[in-house]
Order: sequence, then C-alpha cells, then structure tokens
Amino acid sequence: MPIISIKGINMPESPIRKLVPFAETAKKAGKHVFHLNIGQPDIDSPKVAIDALKDIGRTVIEYSHSAGFESYREGLSKYYKKNGMDVNAEEIIITTGGSEALVFGFMTCFNPGDEVIIPEPFYANYNGFAQMAGINIVPVTASIEDGFALPPIEEFEKKITPKTKGIVICNPGNPTGYLYAQDELKKLAEIVKKKDLFLFADEVYREFCYDNNSPFSVLNLEGIEENVILIDSVSKRYSMCGARIGALITRNKEVLKTVLKFAQARLSPPTLAQIASEAALNTPDSYFTDVVNEYVERRNILVDGLNKIPGVICPKPKGAFYCIAQLPIDDADLFCKWLLEDFEYNGDTIMMAPASGFYATKGLGKTQVRLAYVLEKDALKKSVKCLEEALKIYPGRK
Amino acid sequence: MPIISIKGINMPESPIRKLVPFAETAKKAGKHVFHLNIGQPDIDSPKVAIDALKDIGRTVIEYSHSAGFESYREGLSKYYKKNGMDVNAEEIIITTGGSEALVFGFMTCFNPGDEVIIPEPFYANYNGFAQMAGINIVPVTASIEDGFALPPIEEFEKKITPKTKGIVICNPGNPTGYLYAQDELKKLAEIVKKKDLFLFADEVYREFCYDNNSPFSVLNLEGIEENVILIDSVSKRYSMCGARIGALITRNKEVLKTVLKFAQARLSPPTLAQIASEAALNTPDSYFTDVVNEYVERRNILVDGLNKIPGVICPKPKGAFYCIAQLPIDDADLFCKWLLEDFEYNGDTIMMAPASGFYATKGLGKTQVRLAYVLEKDALKKSVKCLEEALKIYPGRK
Repeated sequence: MPIISIKGINMPESPIRKLVPFAETAKKAGKHVFHLNIGQPDIDSPKVAIDALKDIGRTVIEYSHSAGFESYREGLSKYYKKNGMDVNAEEIIITTGGSEALVFGFMTCFNPGDEVIIPEPFYANYNGFAQMAGINIVPVTASIEDGFALPPIEEFEKKITPKTKGIVICNPGNPTGYLYAQDELKKLAEIVKKKDLFLFADEVYREFCYDNNSPFSVLNLEGIEENVILIDSVSKRYSMCGARIGALITRNKEVLKTVLKFAQARLSPPTLAQIASEAALNTPDSYFTDVVNEYVERRNILVDGLNKIPGVICPKPKGAFYCIAQLPIDDADLFCKWLLEDFEYNGDTIMMAPASGFYATKGLGKTQVRLAYVLEKDALKKSVKCLEEALKIYPGRK
Repeated sequence: MPIISIKGINMPESPIRKLVPFAETAKKAGKHVFHLNIGQPDIDSPKVAIDALKDIGRTVIEYSHSAGFESYREGLSKYYKKNGMDVNAEEIIITTGGSEALVFGFMTCFNPGDEVIIPEPFYANYNGFAQMAGINIVPVTASIEDGFALPPIEEFEKKITPKTKGIVICNPGNPTGYLYAQDELKKLAEIVKKKDLFLFADEVYREFCYDNNSPFSVLNLEGIEENVILIDSVSKRYSMCGARIGALITRNKEVLKTVLKFAQARLSPPTLAQIASEAALNTPDSYFTDVVNEYVERRNILVDGLNKIPGVICPKPKGAFYCIAQLPIDDADLFCKWLLEDFEYNGDTIMMAPASGFYATKGLGKTQVRLAYVLEKDALKKSVKCLEEALKIYPGRK
C-alpha cells in the first residue's frame, strides 16, 4: 500500500470539528445541542439572490471566465466604491470562496518555507491553507485583557526574520470579534512598508460592525498599494456560506496576473453561485440594518450573559459574530467534551469550540472557548443558562 | 514592491488561452471565429437539473458537509453501481470540480519533489495541479501513428526512479480521444502493484464512448484497490462545466481521511451546484443516447473531413470529444496565430489549440493541434473547409 504525503499527514484538523462525534452521540442520547461552535448563520439569504436562481434562463450551465463573470466584477467594483474602497473590476478575481482566494494568494506571494506573521487567536483554517502552500505561520499573541487589540508593533518586529514575507489579519476578526482601529492599521502599514511584506486582510465580516463603528479597509492604507491583498466572500455578508464565492483583490498587477494563472488551471468559479452573488448585489440596505440589529441583540444577550457568570470574562466584540470567553475551568477541550458527554440541563447542552485550536502558540487558549452568536435569541439565552449551570457542577472547575 | 513566489512565476499558462487575445482581435475585425479550441459543449444541461434550481425551496444557501451532501453521495454510489463500479457513499468525497479532486489527491499522495508518470499528450492543466503540489511530471510518449494507444509498459518501467510515486491517466482521453482497452489497463495495474504506486484515473468522459465501445474503470482492476484514485466530474457528463462539481473516489481509507482534511479546510463544495448535480442523477437514459449520437455524427464530420485534407492525419477517437491532428505545417503555434490574424474564408476562421502545450517533452506536438468537436455539425463542416482552404495558402505549409 503506497504511503501518503507528509503534507497530508501534517494537514491540521479543524478545531471546530474535533467534537462532532461527541455531539452526534449526545443527540442520539436525546439531548438538544445548541451549536455555538460554528459560523453558519440562520439568517435568510437575500430574496433577490434566491429569486435569480428561480428565474434562471440558462439552458447550459457553462464555465464562466476564470476570473468570474465580467458583469459580476463590474457590480462588485460598484459595491466597493459605495463602501469607500476604490476598486476597479480588473483588480478583482472571483474565487471559490474566500478559502480559494487565500490558497491562491499564499501560493502566489510566498515560497515554501516562508514565514507569515498572524495575530493569534486566528481563524483556524489559515493553518490548513498555510500547510497547502508550505509556509509557516508565526504568531503574535493578542491578549484577552486588551480585548484582543492589535499586539504592540514591537512584537511584530521581534518576530521578523529574513524568511518573513507577509502579515495576515482578519478584520473584523474571527474568532475574536475585534475591529482594528485606523491607527492600529496604520502602524501595521508602516512595518509592511519598511520590511516590504505582503499584507493579507480578510475583511469578509465588513458589514458586521456594531455600536456605530465603521470598518477601515487595508485598501485605504497609503503607500502600500502594491503590498495589500484583500480577501472577500459573500458567505457571511449574504448568509450564503454554501455559495462558495469569494474574491481576491489587489492593485499589484504581478500578483493579479499570477493568481489568474492559478484560477485558469481550475477553469472557473461556480457559475450558479455567481448568478446568485451578482443578484445579491441588489440586496436592499434594510436587509443589513435588520441583520446588524439582530446580531447586536444576540451579542448583547450572549456576551452580557457570559460576563454575569462568576469567573467568566468575555470582551465585547465590535464586529463579526464570534467572541472568545475565558472560563474558570481546567481545560476547555475537556470541558467542551464533558458538556456533550456528561451534562444536560432541562434536556439541553451546548457545543463550543475550544480556543486552543485558534492559537499557534502551544498552551495558549487552554481555558478559553470560541462562541458564535448565530442562533436565535431564545436559544442564546438558554445556552447561557446551560453554561452557567454547567460551570456550577463541572468537576474541573477552578 | 514585494516579490512573488517561484511557484507563481513557474505556474504554467493554459495552452488553450494563449491565443485568446488574437481571437479577440479577429472578432473585432469582423471575422467569425469557430471555437474548436475549448471543451465547453453547446449541449443543454439536463432539464431535471435546471428545474431543481427553479424549484429551490431553501431560504438559506448553507454550507454542505465538507465531503458533500450525504444524499448526493448515496445517489452517486447508485450511479457507479449501475455503471458496474462497486462504490459506496463513504468512498466518495465531493469536490469543486475534478480540478480540486486532482489538487487534493496530489497533495495527499505525493510529497514535493515526487515524480508522477503521465502518457503524453495529456490534459494541460495537470501541469498546473502538479505545480501547486510541487511534484514533477515525467512523460511517456504516446504516438499518433498508434492512435495514441498506451505506450509499451517498458517505457513506463524505464522512467521509474526512486522518486516515482504515481501514474496519472485520463480515460477516455483528453486531448486524444483514445479509449484504453482492458488489456492496456491490466498491464498498467501490474506495474502499479509491482512498484507500489498510486494510480490516478480521470474518467470524466465515461459516458462518451463510441462505436459500441465500453469504458473499463480502474476501480475494477484487481489487486490494486488501495492504489487507485478515481477522479470524476459532472462537467462533461451533464454539460454542466460551470457547476464545478467533481468527486474523488478511492477505497484507500488513509487517502480518504486525508483528502477530507483538505476538504474541511475549504469548508464545503458549492451547495447550489450540488442541488443541480444530485437532480441530474435522474437524467433519463435517452439524454445520453441523443448526446452520444450527436457526438458520433460530429466526430465523423470533423475527423473524416480532416483525413480527407491532403497531408492531414487524425486518428479516429473512440471516446471524449477531442482529437489530435497532424498538419502539414512548420509550426502549429504560428499556424494557429496566423489563422486568427491573417486568414479568413467567407468571413470565417478557426481557433484551435496548438498541441505542443499538451506534451511535456520539449519539441513534441509541434505540427499537431487539438480540436474539440463541441460545435454543431454545420459549424464543423465550415471549420473543416476553412482549415482546408487555409492549408492551401499558409506560407509555412510543408
């Protein structure tokens, strides 16, 4: 039997999925499991997007251009301009989800063995994309005490070696919900310029900013136009995670030309989902007002509820729909497993993602969990109550 | 300005696309261009697939399971069993096109620097997928004189080094249209077993076999169950190239487990296209009878027409919808460019893919072109006439 590759053996498993078998057992045992572990929103996709599929006039589901429909790229350009980002259609390559944009971007910008610095905790699948491209992630630790603000720029400088070729950020952040201020991003821009690095920014949660905060895009950082790679996606914006439509945007022509070669090898992004995504550009503003209001209420229920539980600390996120909470426990992996295997409260239990999988530094996040507030308010209230009761009797309580 | 990666610089460009700018210029100049260069069929997708989209009941376009809908995998398992291949649902991972199946398969089975042997001429995008996985393609040359039959097995043995980890075939073949006989595949199986290699088989043209020939799947080769990786796709079968739904199928549990880790990192294959693909499983048999009859007629018009042109040799394909023709010219790259730039016949010209891009050995295929017979019969007749007239006056005629 032939042996599989080292890359395959070392390919990380998602920290969100490790507990799935235990959740399945819990459900079989009759428990109701509140899924706070995943970012699949329950919000409806925009009606205009679904209607575009119902009205499909095509009789052949053909390839699109490898960079995506021209009409869709033109439409996206208008969307960015409306959102204060001066992006032209030819600076956009449509990808199969933000995931593919990251893989193509990493392979285009980095050689195997290169290092990229990422503030931790970070979106766990960055590990998988780095593994695919053969690059190494070097973490700079953000702390829960600072609400996961950008670590001091000196921490980045300390980590820079001759192998460092880029910095990756997610803003607003998954898993922290932190929204970088313009000042923080300008400090990043300085070091990016000084060291001539690529700056990848995953801004897929742009629409989800709360408390009158606005997102500041890396595309508006001056002096590093050739360094910036923006990663975008319709997954969260339109609650269309299954569409698998994303985009890579840059003003660097060499990067665009090269990403297109990767895009051409795989022929085309999904045509049907592009039809839906292009139609979604006509989503009325009221959709986002409603969705943002809903997430603010959900966040308040979850985060305020968490902070009322003795020993629990949870910084209030300014964006996205995740938060990281510090719990008074021995080990979040054990606790999350225990919740599914050995606990129930009125027939309910909760599933959370242990935060250790979002840190690259071994040992960090051991007593933290990531929670997504993509459930209805009533379910979130019950989830908080579950957690409160669970912490009262968990044997590993600290 | 930061420097892009070596992988990016060396990423090959598709040989099919090199001529696109010249075709655009020709069209602007008012010429009608017959596209014999691409494999985008003009055949309608099955009505059941389009109807499934029109009837979509979902209000949220959600992620699917990373391995694809369970119901779709169950349905596919039945499809394979009906086609004489004993495949269970858990041996199938749904991918974003056959392209992603190849990338995940290569990354799972091969280490950077490993070698895979591929009979040339071969599907040019294998070069891109190999580049992404960091592996080297070692060609074994099939000859037009033998109609592109499998090269003698000794030729494979000669190319095997300690770095050889796999063999890749496409059957029925793009770009040759050759259909491997059971005997040829059994010889391959022997060497695969003896040298403990992975055998990748791209069988996406399974339905397109002509003249009462049946395809023999590598899944039915005995004694190499753990070595075989099947690549499949709905693109050609249902004329749904833009769906981007493929599959990786293997009985090797270690490979399945590892490919799933890659699949999980990118979350899910496209949901909308899975809905269409699952519905397409109910395509009536008459659809394929009609399509195959149509392709046989098209093939006969094109290939018989080509062979009647003095100095042109084109083996008659038994499958797929491509052929390779040898032309009495100096250089196919120059000729194909000349056809677009300097030639027209009654306002028409043709676009073909120079075959050199389908060979890995430098200098081979220089006087050959690949043609796809995915146009209507009348267009194919006109295309043959165009080529005949062009060869009469081409300055580089030999």
